Amino acid sequence: MKKVAVILSGCGVFDGAEIHESVLTLLAIDKAGASYQCAAPNISQAHVINHIDGSEVESETRNVLQESARIARGEIADLANINPADFDAIALPGGFGAAKNLCNFAFDADSLAIDPTLESFLKKAHALGKPIAFACIAPAVAAKVFGSEGLRFTIGTDEDTASALTQWGGEHVNCAVDEIVVDDARKIVTTPAYMLAQRISEAQSGLSKMVDALLAMA
Amino acid sequence: MKKVAVILSGCGVFDGAEIHESVLTLLAIDKAGASYQCAAPNISQAHVINHIDGSEVESETRNVLQESARIARGEIADLANINPADFDAIALPGGFGAAKNLCNFAFDADSLAIDPTLESFLKKAHALGKPIAFACIAPAVAAKVFGSEGLRFTIGTDEDTASALTQWGGEHVNCAVDEIVVDDARKIVTTPAYMLAQRISEAQSGLSKMVDALLAMA
Repeated sequence: MKKVAVILSGCGVFDGAEIHESVLTLLAIDKAGASYQCAAPNISQAHVINHIDGSEVESETRNVLQESARIARGEIADLANINPADFDAIALPGGFGAAKNLCNFAFDADSLAIDPTLESFLKKAHALGKPIAFACIAPAVAAKVFGSEGLRFTIGTDEDTASALTQWGGEHVNCAVDEIVVDDARKIVTTPAYMLAQRISEAQSGLSKMVDALLAMA
Repeated sequence: MKKVAVILSGCGVFDGAEIHESVLTLLAIDKAGASYQCAAPNISQAHVINHIDGSEVESETRNVLQESARIARGEIADLANINPADFDAIALPGGFGAAKNLCNFAFDADSLAIDPTLESFLKKAHALGKPIAFACIAPAVAAKVFGSEGLRFTIGTDEDTASALTQWGGEHVNCAVDEIVVDDARKIVTTPAYMLAQRISEAQSGLSKMVDALLAMA
C-alpha cells in the first residue's frame, strides 16, 4: 500500500490549512487504496483569525502542529520527526496557513522564505524522486523551492499571484478548478482548489485528480 | 434547490464538531444538488482539548460559533438567528462537540440537558415536518429531544452508550458503519460514522446515505 505524507499548516482557511481541501485530500488518498500520515511543523501560527469576521485575535497564539491535529483526529507527526524516505509521495493542501505558516508569501511575497523544516523535507523528498502535490496557494512553496529548476505549476488564473511566484524561475500555467498541472520531469502536481472553487464539489474534482496523478507517479 | 441547515459544534473531534464528518456532510449535500447553510450556537465550548495528547488546555476558552466558522469557511449563522421554516432539512454531524457543547452527554448522561437554542430549533423544525439527520454521537441530542415519541435511532453498536440514551424512551437499533437507520414516521435519520469508522471512506459511505435519505424526506 502506498503511503502519503500530508503536510498541514493549522486548521482553518484564514490562518491554517483549508479544512475542506485537507479532508478531501485524505478522502481521495483513502479511496485510491493508499494510506496517509498527517504531519505539520511544530511552530507558532503567524496569527489567529476570527473566522466569522476576519479580524485578528491578538490575544491568542496557536501552534500549527496542535491545530493541524484537529484535522488529523489526533494522528499527526511532527514534520521534524519523519523521513521522506518512509513515504511514497507527499501532499500539501492549501489555505492561508500554507502562505502564512509554511512560508511568508501572504506577508512579504518578494522576500519569500520557506519554513526551514519544510524546505529541508521537500528538498530531500525531491532528491529521492518522491512525487509531491500542492493545492490552492501551497504552490507558493513549490515555486520558491523548485522554481530555479523551471517548475511548471498553477495557482489557478490570478495574474498578480502568478507573477509574484514566477520571479523565482518557474512557469505558471492557467488551470481550471477541475483540472491539474503535472510537471512530469519534476514529479510535481498542482491544482487550484479554492483559489477558484465556488463549491466544495468543484474543489473535490481537482483534488481527486491531483491525488490520482500523485499516486500514479509514486 | 433544497436547502439544509448544518448545525456544527466547534472544530475538532475531541472538543468540537468532527471535521471529516462535517466536511463529508457538506460534500454529500452539494453533490446531491442541494445547498447548505452552516450554523452553530453562540456559546463557549465546554473546554479546549490539545488534539495531540488529549489533555485539557485549561488556560484557553473558545467560542463554538467562531470555531465552527473554520469548517464553514466563514459562512456561518448564529443558530439563534435562523428559522427552521427557511430550510428543507437539518443535519448535525458528530464529534465530542455534539456531546459536550450541544448537550452535556459526555459529562452527565443521566441528567442530560440540551443547549436551549438548539432544543428550541429542533422542536420547531420537527413540528414543521422538517426531516433531521444526526451522525456519530449527535443522536444523543435526538434521543433526549425525541425519545418520548419513541424515536428509533442508532449510535452504532456500543451497548453502554445505547443504554444510556434509551432511558428517554427511544429505541436503539444496531447499525453498520456504512448503513443508516431511518425513522420514517418521525423523519429522523441516524448513522454511526466515526462511532465505528476506521477509515475516512467508511465514514463517507454512511454519511452519503444519511444525506440522501434526509433529502428524500425533504
